[in-house]
Amino acid sequence: MPFPFKDCSSLLLFSSDAGGGPGANFLYHAGAEVDSSVLLWTKAGKTLLTPKMNERQARALFRGRVVPLGPGQMVPVLKRLLPRGKIGLDLESLSASRHLRLAKALGGQKRLVDVSGKLEVMRSVKKNDEISRIRRAVSISKDILHSITLSPSMTELDVVRQLARECLEQRVSFAYPPIVAAGAASGQPHHSPVAKRLGTGVVLIDFGVKYKNYCADLSRCYFIGPAMEERQRYEEAKGVFHSIVDNLPACRTAGELVRMGDKLMEKAGWPPLIHAPGHGIGLEVHEGPHIYSKSNEKLVPNMVMALEPAFYCAKFGVRYENEVVWGKKKARVL
Amino acid sequence: MPFPFKDCSSLLLFSSDAGGGPGANFLYHAGAEVDSSVLLWTKAGKTLLTPKMNERQARALFRGRVVPLGPGQMVPVLKRLLPRGKIGLDLESLSASRHLRLAKALGGQKRLVDVSGKLEVMRSVKKNDEISRIRRAVSISKDILHSITLSPSMTELDVVRQLARECLEQRVSFAYPPIVAAGAASGQPHHSPVAKRLGTGVVLIDFGVKYKNYCADLSRCYFIGPAMEERQRYEEAKGVFHSIVDNLPACRTAGELVRMGDKLMEKAGWPPLIHAPGHGIGLEVHEGPHIYSKSNEKLVPNMVMALEPAFYCAKFGVRYENEVVWGKKKARVL
Repeated sequence: MPFPFKDCSSLLLFSSDAGGGPGANFLYHAGAEVDSSVLLWTKAGKTLLTPKMNERQARALFRGRVVPLGPGQMVPVLKRLLPRGKIGLDLESLSASRHLRLAKALGGQKRLVDVSGKLEVMRSVKKNDEISRIRRAVSISKDILHSITLSPSMTELDVVRQLARECLEQRVSFAYPPIVAAGAASGQPHHSPVAKRLGTGVVLIDFGVKYKNYCADLSRCYFIGPAMEERQRYEEAKGVFHSIVDNLPACRTAGELVRMGDKLMEKAGWPPLIHAPGHGIGLEVHEGPHIYSKSNEKLVPNMVMALEPAFYCAKFGVRYENEVVWGKKKARVL
Repeated sequence: MPFPFKDCSSLLLFSSDAGGGPGANFLYHAGAEVDSSVLLWTKAGKTLLTPKMNERQARALFRGRVVPLGPGQMVPVLKRLLPRGKIGLDLESLSASRHLRLAKALGGQKRLVDVSGKLEVMRSVKKNDEISRIRRAVSISKDILHSITLSPSMTELDVVRQLARECLEQRVSFAYPPIVAAGAASGQPHHSPVAKRLGTGVVLIDFGVKYKNYCADLSRCYFIGPAMEERQRYEEAKGVFHSIVDNLPACRTAGELVRMGDKLMEKAGWPPLIHAPGHGIGLEVHEGPHIYSKSNEKLVPNMVMALEPAFYCAKFGVRYENEVVWGKKKARVL
């Protein structure tokens, strides 16, 4: 890919920062996980600056020039390699303290421009091999969900461990810490699983695996005992989900999608949803497109979204969630 | 604990930022994991601002005032609750973009002060219950290491999966992605495990679990076949480790510890170490005290460090690592 930024002559991405691991933008553009490294991207190509102790690993994994760094060499080497002009940074993943240090070392905050928005947009439209990986992540996640068995005496944490064991067998990892919420806890969208027995009623599981760095995010409900009202609402949730998918091509922006979803949930007799009806997904569980009512972000073919209509009340909650690829004529459920 | 900062009248800590999960400082001072929340700490006490959908969870987990937030309310509510004066922030975990947004909303960058250094120092001296948790994490990690069995036909990734299965059985999680490095790969301190057979020679495992949010970090070497030179170097590594521990109380700063370790490794006939001889450990695998040769940071009783003397050459590497509590008269190995 040619250097895609207009308002800067270079881009710097760091493989570990405030949050620890390599950010999604580093993974996407460096194509490799190498600890404590900096990707320098200019019109001349990509260079990976890495501590000497990671040099062998960097040369094995990174396609491009590798520059090994001794202690304290990062800034002097950057100064030598950076072309004139502004430097693009991902201010969403960069720590504030590193931002201030870079500004001081490289010519002031005015030389640094935030390209995090552009970086996110670049990732929001998926290439075919990315969609294949998400589809595979979805398919493995569904297999794992099919394999688990629930009983009233199991606890929410027992279910999490069962999911973890299945992930190990399948050689994949959690895309995010799963939610297992039984009974009244299912009414909290972000419940953290606890050592409480499932008992009877609904068990909401929100779970997905990561396959080759790409995420799945599914929500399914299971029922123990009659749980008539819960079952009824879950059938409605599936109906709302499929209506959203049917109406998706008519939505030209993320905001329109929210309004369309709201209408369908209202039509089902549901209270207004207390979270977004979905989110973009890919290397990160939550990424672009960002789906909120005031958004004017255009929906574009091959954007992948997790859509999750949900009904919550004090007694319980149900949610049905799948990955969907936006298309002009038809949306595809992965 | 009374409000401990002198150069600001409030502290803001965010439970999710650039890196995703709750930062260690949020966990330490809020004492709870609640998604998408802000801890506001002033002389009057601690307040947790959290989205409405997390309110129930926040009230169950957080000891202090909980303020539920509707969409877009964070800044107006903060403005109302913040006392006059400067606002302390953890610029190491805060994203640069949030830092800029807060500056704009709350009165300019000059009102915001970085207290990340002070926050890290507060965590570097451990309370007794923190040391107990680290000791328990170490003890579980050792049990797991004892339980694994290696054979030449297993791959590095097989060993990682065996460690993961044992963690599941013990109901703990990895403190960090384990390193399993066989043969020449052991010469790379940060090798990422691959689907390569162990064969004969040394297998270096760098592994630790998290117990109640506290980390262990151990390195052990195993041998398949004669591997005489590897075994010999590993015995030396153990010797160097114990000499470092014996000499630890005489080191009054982190820098002195590095120089003392360097001397002992030189005395063993080893090449200079290409990484620090250790690091502070606690809620994070790497935290204060920061151990590097130019550091003047004073060592203080109840600082906990992972010490890891290591020998690397082109053919292999060995490392021996344990957690150690600094004391004026004696250092304790956990």
